[in-house]
Amino acid sequence: MTVKNVTGGVCAPKGFTAAGMHCGVRKNRSKKDIAMIFCDTECSAAAVYTQNKVYGAPITVTRANIADGKARAVICNSGNANTSNADGVEKAEAMCELTAKALGISPSDVIVASTGVIGQSLDIEPIAYGISELPKLLSKEGGEDAALAIMTTDTKIKEISFEAEIGGKTVRFGAIAKGSGMIHPNMATMLSFITTDVAISSEMLSKALKAVVDDTYNMISVDGDTSTNDMVAVMASGLAGNSLIDSNGEDFESFTEALRVIGNYMAPMIAGDGEGATKLLICSVSGAADVKTAKTIARGVIASSLVKAMFFGADANWGRLLCAMGYCGAEFDVSKVSISMSSAAGSIEGVKGGFCLPFDEDEAKKILSESEIHIDIALGDGSASAKAWGCDLTYDYVKINGDYRT
Amino acid sequence: MTVKNVTGGVCAPKGFTAAGMHCGVRKNRSKKDIAMIFCDTECSAAAVYTQNKVYGAPITVTRANIADGKARAVICNSGNANTSNADGVEKAEAMCELTAKALGISPSDVIVASTGVIGQSLDIEPIAYGISELPKLLSKEGGEDAALAIMTTDTKIKEISFEAEIGGKTVRFGAIAKGSGMIHPNMATMLSFITTDVAISSEMLSKALKAVVDDTYNMISVDGDTSTNDMVAVMASGLAGNSLIDSNGEDFESFTEALRVIGNYMAPMIAGDGEGATKLLICSVSGAADVKTAKTIARGVIASSLVKAMFFGADANWGRLLCAMGYCGAEFDVSKVSISMSSAAGSIEGVKGGFCLPFDEDEAKKILSESEIHIDIALGDGSASAKAWGCDLTYDYVKINGDYRT
Repeated sequence: MTVKNVTGGVCAPKGFTAAGMHCGVRKNRSKKDIAMIFCDTECSAAAVYTQNKVYGAPITVTRANIADGKARAVICNSGNANTSNADGVEKAEAMCELTAKALGISPSDVIVASTGVIGQSLDIEPIAYGISELPKLLSKEGGEDAALAIMTTDTKIKEISFEAEIGGKTVRFGAIAKGSGMIHPNMATMLSFITTDVAISSEMLSKALKAVVDDTYNMISVDGDTSTNDMVAVMASGLAGNSLIDSNGEDFESFTEALRVIGNYMAPMIAGDGEGATKLLICSVSGAADVKTAKTIARGVIASSLVKAMFFGADANWGRLLCAMGYCGAEFDVSKVSISMSSAAGSIEGVKGGFCLPFDEDEAKKILSESEIHIDIALGDGSASAKAWGCDLTYDYVKINGDYRT
Repeated sequence: MTVKNVTGGVCAPKGFTAAGMHCGVRKNRSKKDIAMIFCDTECSAAAVYTQNKVYGAPITVTRANIADGKARAVICNSGNANTSNADGVEKAEAMCELTAKALGISPSDVIVASTGVIGQSLDIEPIAYGISELPKLLSKEGGEDAALAIMTTDTKIKEISFEAEIGGKTVRFGAIAKGSGMIHPNMATMLSFITTDVAISSEMLSKALKAVVDDTYNMISVDGDTSTNDMVAVMASGLAGNSLIDSNGEDFESFTEALRVIGNYMAPMIAGDGEGATKLLICSVSGAADVKTAKTIARGVIASSLVKAMFFGADANWGRLLCAMGYCGAEFDVSKVSISMSSAAGSIEGVKGGFCLPFDEDEAKKILSESEIHIDIALGDGSASAKAWGCDLTYDYVKINGDYRT
């Protein structure tokens, strides 16, 4: 699919405005902590959520609100996850009611999300203040502020917007995301909000989202910990003027491909900005008997603490890659496995026929010292493949998480 | 079971001698790198092995050698795992042949093990030199040298020996172990060698070993990485004079209990000495519907990177405990969960009815600053329970594993 980058983030598609500001959930006044995305018209909406049995109150409330496939606004705070609190659902519902009142819409058209510390009661006062101010700040230029406001330990803003052609019409997509820690999505992911002006039914929107999330957001691991608050939500305003996509076909394929552009952009962005990360790891598995095997191995390798630590040290310990493959739960024939690693500095093969090869240590060190490293695993068992994104394990990960709440 | 500690380690039981020395697999001449354990008489033998699909050549060879339930010697080197090498099995068999020749026994009576770097061809020359020297060093005082020789990044020797009474006879047990990294056993464990002079059939020995390993060695996690070379092997000389244990009954129960003493001693020793660890974590789950649920949760909590990092920082982030429970795969009712943490400095409750409670931060910090911390999780779903052992995630773990091979 040919896409053309445009500015605007989630505000790029027709109908959407956004804003972000500091309301006081966080003590640090220079860090924005509440975001609002609004659409002039009612949108088709769909979302995927964390599969963690312990999930945040905002998940409960959003799931109920978009059960009808409709939404008009997103309200999201950072700094407090509003999870595992006795008053959590009450607070999440209050956030929707305040947002609805401020925007003149129905509370059931609000997607609510929270991210931050688990298990501390959410103070509604700063939230209420923020929600009263945000409508005045809503603008076509507010996408970046919204992207900044949902960040927690992220060091980089995660935002994309582009134009594509669907059904002979120029349509637009925008997305923001936050990641960093507690990242090991399972059927859902960290927070990401996607907007588009494509006309599409909520059923087809949901179908496209699930397909893309499984191959992109769900193939990231920072620390093996699946968050309680993961959510990817998408709103489609239908203002682009294309014929409504309400069944399979070429337009639906194009739409799914456009969402895939977003997923493939956000996955390495989130993994590479994992807590404390200095390196982005991209593990590609090919020659698998089936996609499930390829995915299990790709995720298994990038989730291994020992693999992650060896990349921090730029130490080509090929045995650890094999070891992680061996315990990840996938079926494969060890004796057919080949592994190579590559980066901007070159490429090197280290495993063939399941055994480690002698290799040039200096060359390997040079290749592994780059900031983006590809691990290519060939299984020789079939033609299925998969890709997973991860990062190295560093002193800073330990530092950030040794005292996260203070 | 009443046991009385005695000295001697693996040499405490009748019939066993041992030795450890530096042979040259490792460059550091002050680190012993090869161990031998020998028994005057043929022993019943049993072992459990790693479930990693990628497993070391020594596993292949030992499995074949003790298929007949008999063994007389252990030969084990550290510094090189002899795994994922094209010539691995050949080298492991050579170790057995050299040992057999040096001791005047059959190669098929040798338990061979290797631990260290994966994927580097094992140089047989230093090994051959070691095996030629070790028989001269074998003595009743050699247990500690053997324990030292199998250590890799371990900082503490792991050795136990005691007397117990079985079938009216005084019997003895001895055991050594090594742990530290790549520790997340699954149906088997890191290296541990157990000796006893109890008369027991190899079938009953195997049955007792499996039962105990599942509750002890298999309930440890240092880093979530299941090693390729895990092995617990036990040899029983039968010289204690008890009536042969060849079926279920009181004597078998007593024997299993004695093995359990070893497992319960080694599990916290190995977890607490995990790579870079500053704290031992003991997670006890009670009130579970079944043992599998209790085990899954206990292991899930101590294996979470975020939980491990929070203990390094003595940060009472109760939500992370709930989060780890939620994604570990166990079925439970979140609304019935209570969690408390305790140490030598006191005890504090932080979760009740599935929600986080307000708590005294200073008190929590004091409790979590101790070197041994208990996490007690009550599920309110039944009467099954389980215990798992882990450690904190520290800068030193990252340091050790960022450049392990050099």
